[in-house]
Amino acid sequence: MEKIKNLIAGLGELNFENMYNDDFFLTWDKTDDELKAVFAVADILRAMREENISTKIFDSGLGISLFRDNSTRTRFSFASACNLLGLEVQDLDEGKSQVAHGETVRETANMISFMADVIGIRDDMFIGKGHTYMQEVSKAVQAGHAEGVLEQRPTLVNLQCDIDHPTQCMADLLHLVHYFGGVENLKGKKLAMTWAYSPSYGKPLSVPQGVIGLMTRMGMEVILAHPEGYDVLPEVEEVAKANVEKNGGSFTKTNSMKEAFEGADIVYPKSWAPFAAMEKRTDLYAQGDSDGIKALEKELLEENAKHKDWECTEEMMALTNEGKALYLHCLPADITDVSCTAGEVAKTVFDRYREPLYKQAGFKPYIIAAMMFLSKVKDPVATFDALLEADKKRFAGK
Amino acid sequence: MEKIKNLIAGLGELNFENMYNDDFFLTWDKTDDELKAVFAVADILRAMREENISTKIFDSGLGISLFRDNSTRTRFSFASACNLLGLEVQDLDEGKSQVAHGETVRETANMISFMADVIGIRDDMFIGKGHTYMQEVSKAVQAGHAEGVLEQRPTLVNLQCDIDHPTQCMADLLHLVHYFGGVENLKGKKLAMTWAYSPSYGKPLSVPQGVIGLMTRMGMEVILAHPEGYDVLPEVEEVAKANVEKNGGSFTKTNSMKEAFEGADIVYPKSWAPFAAMEKRTDLYAQGDSDGIKALEKELLEENAKHKDWECTEEMMALTNEGKALYLHCLPADITDVSCTAGEVAKTVFDRYREPLYKQAGFKPYIIAAMMFLSKVKDPVATFDALLEADKKRFAGK
Amino acid sequence: MEKIKNLIAGLGELNFENMYNDDFFLTWDKTDDELKAVFAVADILRAMREENISTKIFDSGLGISLFRDNSTRTRFSFASACNLLGLEVQDLDEGKSQVAHGETVRETANMISFMADVIGIRDDMFIGKGHTYMQEVSKAVQAGHAEGVLEQRPTLVNLQCDIDHPTQCMADLLHLVHYFGGVENLKGKKLAMTWAYSPSYGKPLSVPQGVIGLMTRMGMEVILAHPEGYDVLPEVEEVAKANVEKNGGSFTKTNSMKEAFEGADIVYPKSWAPFAAMEKRTDLYAQGDSDGIKALEKELLEENAKHKDWECTEEMMALTNEGKALYLHCLPADITDVSCTAGEVAKTVFDRYREPLYKQAGFKPYIIAAMMFLSKVKDPVATFDALLEADKKRFAGK
Repeated sequence: MEKIKNLIAGLGELNFENMYNDDFFLTWDKTDDELKAVFAVADILRAMREENISTKIFDSGLGISLFRDNSTRTRFSFASACNLLGLEVQDLDEGKSQVAHGETVRETANMISFMADVIGIRDDMFIGKGHTYMQEVSKAVQAGHAEGVLEQRPTLVNLQCDIDHPTQCMADLLHLVHYFGGVENLKGKKLAMTWAYSPSYGKPLSVPQGVIGLMTRMGMEVILAHPEGYDVLPEVEEVAKANVEKNGGSFTKTNSMKEAFEGADIVYPKSWAPFAAMEKRTDLYAQGDSDGIKALEKELLEENAKHKDWECTEEMMALTNEGKALYLHCLPADITDVSCTAGEVAKTVFDRYREPLYKQAGFKPYIIAAMMFLSKVKDPVATFDALLEADKKRFAGK
Repeated sequence: MEKIKNLIAGLGELNFENMYNDDFFLTWDKTDDELKAVFAVADILRAMREENISTKIFDSGLGISLFRDNSTRTRFSFASACNLLGLEVQDLDEGKSQVAHGETVRETANMISFMADVIGIRDDMFIGKGHTYMQEVSKAVQAGHAEGVLEQRPTLVNLQCDIDHPTQCMADLLHLVHYFGGVENLKGKKLAMTWAYSPSYGKPLSVPQGVIGLMTRMGMEVILAHPEGYDVLPEVEEVAKANVEKNGGSFTKTNSMKEAFEGADIVYPKSWAPFAAMEKRTDLYAQGDSDGIKALEKELLEENAKHKDWECTEEMMALTNEGKALYLHCLPADITDVSCTAGEVAKTVFDRYREPLYKQAGFKPYIIAAMMFLSKVKDPVATFDALLEADKKRFAGK
Repeated sequence: MEKIKNLIAGLGELNFENMYNDDFFLTWDKTDDELKAVFAVADILRAMREENISTKIFDSGLGISLFRDNSTRTRFSFASACNLLGLEVQDLDEGKSQVAHGETVRETANMISFMADVIGIRDDMFIGKGHTYMQEVSKAVQAGHAEGVLEQRPTLVNLQCDIDHPTQCMADLLHLVHYFGGVENLKGKKLAMTWAYSPSYGKPLSVPQGVIGLMTRMGMEVILAHPEGYDVLPEVEEVAKANVEKNGGSFTKTNSMKEAFEGADIVYPKSWAPFAAMEKRTDLYAQGDSDGIKALEKELLEENAKHKDWECTEEMMALTNEGKALYLHCLPADITDVSCTAGEVAKTVFDRYREPLYKQAGFKPYIIAAMMFLSKVKDPVATFDALLEADKKRFAGK
């Protein structure tokens, strides 16, 4: 209980009033205090759940899930977060269709939102589309609320777009904060965000982009490594550079996986498709050119196959700081000899880090719940105090 | 709060006791007081939600959704209504199969209902099947309850059948009541329920049928307009005629869209397939005659294409009363140059009425919740008083 | 209320402490007291629901449903059980894929369980796989809990595996207990678990196996009847034999449906595929041999067709004790002249037993809820007393 009260007190010292009634799209659109508030609320919600104190703030209400591609884990994380707060999930199954004409987006957004408090969207398959779509939905429901069509202003949570993956990267960072024992202990740590070989192509860039866009705020030495031609979105690299200017630390790039792993404290080897190729794929899909898509796929797989040495092996791990860098992955990973013949990471490495990897994933439902909480609750400190006061049991079994 | 208490007092003056433990199939099976009770409860639920007062009357219980064709909006409306009252939605996914043999319907209905308080069914694709199916399900669960198989008698809500679309039309009417400032102000208003061109065929007749079956009770001048051959169910026209005999107003028909729009106060241009064609389609489906269905489709699209001038254009709107008739649509509409090349309505007309159109749609979750409420609650006035007394917050955030 | 208090008192006299934080896989892994506890809790939950007393013990929390083949009824039963206790169902849609590599099962199990209190799994299609898979999932979440990855230890309920169908057979037995007026009245009753003809092949063996594995504990004369070659799992026959050694009664086998029906008090004619054929099918699926599967299917249908006389006809029923044996089926049954030309049971027989058949099915949600309750609640008696004390209405309508 002492722990919870301290966390609440810490939350009370932050300035995050602009989060109320606002969406969460990109971490670099949020201030340092706003990010800290998300971490504090995530920790409070978890601590309260561990103490069997109910954190339901909704007696009824819907959390809309809008997934434009399949995702088990994120669906479960979002559903867990909604359930924790008392929202019921209602899924909008739109299929994989490209963004529809303007009017239809505005109409659909309002039609599903009459009793929606939160909307979680995942739209990461097409460069230049996902983030745009989310903003369109947000504008639509803001207008609906202003016009009196909607009684409440549903707030949006980005469950992954083409640019950023805030729920994942915030969970990753909170994991690092807990692992290293505090935000201050992250200063000066070397984090290697590297590409890794995968037998499948077309994995989204939002994780490496989200990582360099966020971790560069923590005074860390962040190094982005990938083979030539596997560049991420230039705009996000600019965000990373601006971050280190402001916060200290560094942001460098290299085409050598070894160089990135050299002395690293944290490694994040993960596959992605080249930004330029993903842009091309978007266009081909828009034209319905399935032959072109097949050709592009073949091309990308062949290019990938030139870089099978980009694997997080024991040899690579031995290069890190005392050979004991923390290995991160958003999961699921392509594990050599387990899920594929040659993959992102060797089996023995993955096995050794299995427990912290699962714990890394375990932060996500709380991060999502925290983002939702801060967007709906005007006075979180008073709300948490009231929940502690009420002391309703989450589980009433004796 | 004053507003809510007045609404509850108004509810108390109506006679609707037969709604308790009964289903809601067709509006013309309900008395005037029963329809007024639905409107009153819908308004009360909305007012309470606006005041952040929880309207949950179930601590647990299921609302079964049985959709025999795809529907996003109605699914969301039903889920919203269930959530508002405290029921959890459980969906029965039967596919698009035709009604199964008698015994299987009775068995399925009982097997899903052990903890079901409400069943919402949408079955509108096949003339002569949907309404029949719903009645079969109702008989099955009534028998189950009488036999002690089911502890409660699940009540049914018609979410659209081949005959009527009560949740839509009741929402439309409540929208009119609010828009024109009261039921009395509807008397003498001219409402044009007209056909409109659509590039797709096979849209259900339940909306025009539901509209003429309901609006003719309000003392309005209702005119049904469509090209020759696009007749609706004759039985429903008889209901409309009987209604105006009893309530005043009028019910006329015309093959001229212009004549219908002339001086209209309310216009409802919407496409539908000819009743006779839909009957034919039902038979072809039953025989599994996919070639016949394709041929019929081709035929219907060609016939539709002869009437592209049946579009709600600015010119048409200019014919209405001061050119300012209220434009209604159940959505989604086929909007010329937005969702199709030529459609039911011109873009500029649709855009001008966008806000009231969204508000029209916003009544549906409350209408559904009201129908459910009145079927489950014996004493709604006492129940609402208790909810006000308890004053539980829907959203407990501070 | 008196009835409820007596049931709770009865529960208090049993020893079932090992059920806390444990899974429910096979009935023969549970002691007599543990099975009695499930029946007592099922009866208490039902009685409380009949008295409109809420039995919610979770304010939030998820019940994960993992169905590896389609099932409407079991989905509804599981959802009803979760809803009764306050858990929200979250479905993991894995498709019909074979069990994945070890690491992936462990990872998936943990990734879905961060806020899961219960996991219900149905995996009965492949001999040697389902039960194994469930145990793997259980080990995975136990390890996750021990490692601090999961805050709670999700407990598993077997919603049907290749070996047993505990929720079905426990519901069947509770139905018998209520029908015959007490456990003692089952002693000496003859129960015929017989094969029956069905036009479809590949029905799981878990029902006949579950029945002989459970009913042989009740001092009944259990007879298993099937054509030659339709043997069930030998290990389960050993369980049955061991049961009657301990509890009295008998377990015999015959290839004559008549002999089984002769003087029976209870008959359970139901189709299943030969154990050996199901094993073969598992291998063919693993090899992706679709031609082999088609050939096997043809073979099995031809073999089935030799035994069309294995039908529960009026003549068969006339052989039973006073011709009035209780007819059982897990539903849906293949009813001659209703769902098929020739099936498991004649129409008139099925019709005559329709009501008790529906009541038999109605026990399942309560059995599942009871299994869940006993796995999560350390002190059920105190918990029930508290629920009675709180006296929260399930339905608050007046």
